[in-house]
Amino acid sequence: MSWEDKVRKVEPYVPGEQPDAKDMIKLNTNECPYPPAPAVKDCLWSMDYDRMRLYPNPDVLPLRKALAQYHGLDTEQVFVGVGSDDVIDMAFLTFFNSDIPVLFPEISYSFYKVWAELYRIPYATKPLDKDFHIVPADYKNANGGIIFPNPNAPTGVLESVDTVEEIIAANPDSVVMIDEAYVDFAGEGASVLPLIDRYENLLVIRTFSKSRAMAGARIGYCMGSRKLISCLEAVKFSVNSYTMNTPAIEMGVVSVKDDAYFKEIIGRIVNTRERMKKELKALGFSMPDGKGNFVFAKHEKIPAKKIYTALRERNIFVRFFDTPLLNDRLRITVGTDEEADRLMAALKEIVEGA
Amino acid sequence: MSWEDKVRKVEPYVPGEQPDAKDMIKLNTNECPYPPAPAVKDCLWSMDYDRMRLYPNPDVLPLRKALAQYHGLDTEQVFVGVGSDDVIDMAFLTFFNSDIPVLFPEISYSFYKVWAELYRIPYATKPLDKDFHIVPADYKNANGGIIFPNPNAPTGVLESVDTVEEIIAANPDSVVMIDEAYVDFAGEGASVLPLIDRYENLLVIRTFSKSRAMAGARIGYCMGSRKLISCLEAVKFSVNSYTMNTPAIEMGVVSVKDDAYFKEIIGRIVNTRERMKKELKALGFSMPDGKGNFVFAKHEKIPAKKIYTALRERNIFVRFFDTPLLNDRLRITVGTDEEADRLMAALKEIVEGA
Repeated sequence: MSWEDKVRKVEPYVPGEQPDAKDMIKLNTNECPYPPAPAVKDCLWSMDYDRMRLYPNPDVLPLRKALAQYHGLDTEQVFVGVGSDDVIDMAFLTFFNSDIPVLFPEISYSFYKVWAELYRIPYATKPLDKDFHIVPADYKNANGGIIFPNPNAPTGVLESVDTVEEIIAANPDSVVMIDEAYVDFAGEGASVLPLIDRYENLLVIRTFSKSRAMAGARIGYCMGSRKLISCLEAVKFSVNSYTMNTPAIEMGVVSVKDDAYFKEIIGRIVNTRERMKKELKALGFSMPDGKGNFVFAKHEKIPAKKIYTALRERNIFVRFFDTPLLNDRLRITVGTDEEADRLMAALKEIVEGA
Repeated sequence: MSWEDKVRKVEPYVPGEQPDAKDMIKLNTNECPYPPAPAVKDCLWSMDYDRMRLYPNPDVLPLRKALAQYHGLDTEQVFVGVGSDDVIDMAFLTFFNSDIPVLFPEISYSFYKVWAELYRIPYATKPLDKDFHIVPADYKNANGGIIFPNPNAPTGVLESVDTVEEIIAANPDSVVMIDEAYVDFAGEGASVLPLIDRYENLLVIRTFSKSRAMAGARIGYCMGSRKLISCLEAVKFSVNSYTMNTPAIEMGVVSVKDDAYFKEIIGRIVNTRERMKKELKALGFSMPDGKGNFVFAKHEKIPAKKIYTALRERNIFVRFFDTPLLNDRLRITVGTDEEADRLMAALKEIVEGA
């Protein structure tokens, strides 16, 4: 036996590339094209740097309180982590502990499978229907837990609150996690957050990386019953007492307090998304009626990989998933209107030159 | 079966309290009494806040490069995490995967046991000798891995490089982790870092929380062979693609570059520590010859808990571990000389009044 026999073998998640080219248009990792709330700048630029020598609040209370107040919840119903990936990682570790498979859609956030394999959690994937919708009947048998994004990624397809509730109601014996990373772009009433009062096993996950324009700050959170959140807290305090650093906590608090700016940039992104859909269709693309900050588009004639490469040559980065179920499409993040102009001009050239 | 039957049961680590009283003297969590390097302030106060909308570098390259250069290593020999707790957590998950118990000292960082239990890793603890030293012979049987802090916590006792090497050399078939959170206070030549060239299974762990005065930034790292670090990277990318936020990466880089300041504050802390030991002995305390930024002191007549409580009443916070092996002692962080003055005056009062 060697030390290498004691190493955990894993198949890591591969995040979208983070190129750093001059004048690039970066539409590949669903970042926000607008800056964070102006108060975030003031917060950073006046931060008491001497306090950096002290540990942050281990319970992340300032940020949990701000989020609880924003959502009309108690602080004990909110859990905060280093991006929603950290939150979901801990939630897998905390709640998915049985011999029965955990369920998630076949087309979905591809990290779910990685976490399941990392923690040796049995899982099964369920196909979407031909319109990329979840089939609720697939989630009604015994299972070790359920997770899916809503809107789904990378399709952008939103399930109604009724559909999601049908799945939750059928599963009182498992934790059901709804990953709402993109829900802020899906309009009023899209979130299942109001259901946490009725289902103590429902966990609703959010992130600051998309709609709050703070991917660089690494802030994610989730909300649920006090009982659910206290289970997560216990595991968090078994992993790392202080996951959130002082700048993240302070920037997070001021971001939450500027709701007008938050709504304004979301409005702009939704407008650009709808415009992009229309213009893409005119160029021969088809796509589901996505509700995230991205479009999931397939060209009727030109292979996705060819378009992806041609865009890259023009310094425009979009996401291409080289897997059998997804390799006929591109996931294109919604940028500013100017970025959409340049994208569309490039696509027109590529389509007409093909 | 209910959802609660699928929840992971854990016994979380309890970090030292983080009181926030006016005029308190906080000597309970081994923070640095001096501010971070001045460049950290400039870095924060001029940070490009618009970049916060973008994901950070997932490979944390700027900080890994700065650390590699500082220690004379290759970037691929350095792994960075959210405090050394995050690094150790991932290292347990990555390297301690066998049915044979992992070994660590009975008196040691009490988080080791928590991580082992979290991940269902079998473990066994080994007693220290009467002078709080590790007994190398205890670490020479088959094991699933080895970890201990050097200097040890909360004793402050340093093992020589020869002693540590004796343990490493006896264990080619396990990963041996030396947690050097406090080594910067232990003088030249205390670290086993030079041994990583000879032992591909040796992992050396460091933190920015103590000697770099940056507990609030949450930065820890470890160094080892390329092979060891690549195993850790694979697990990290199975947990969270982006663990380090932009402020942490940037503040970390500038801290590493100001070596003169780093050495200066360490020198001051070491001087205050030696003075505190002398004055504590004059008051009837005994202690091992600790090499961390704390002293581990026992009074010959007065119970530790009584002193702890009396100090608390005076707004002076030190650490008392209410467990059978440690409850006759206090762990007192080394503060500034002014804080040491106030601490000693209070202790004099308490001892003379007893």
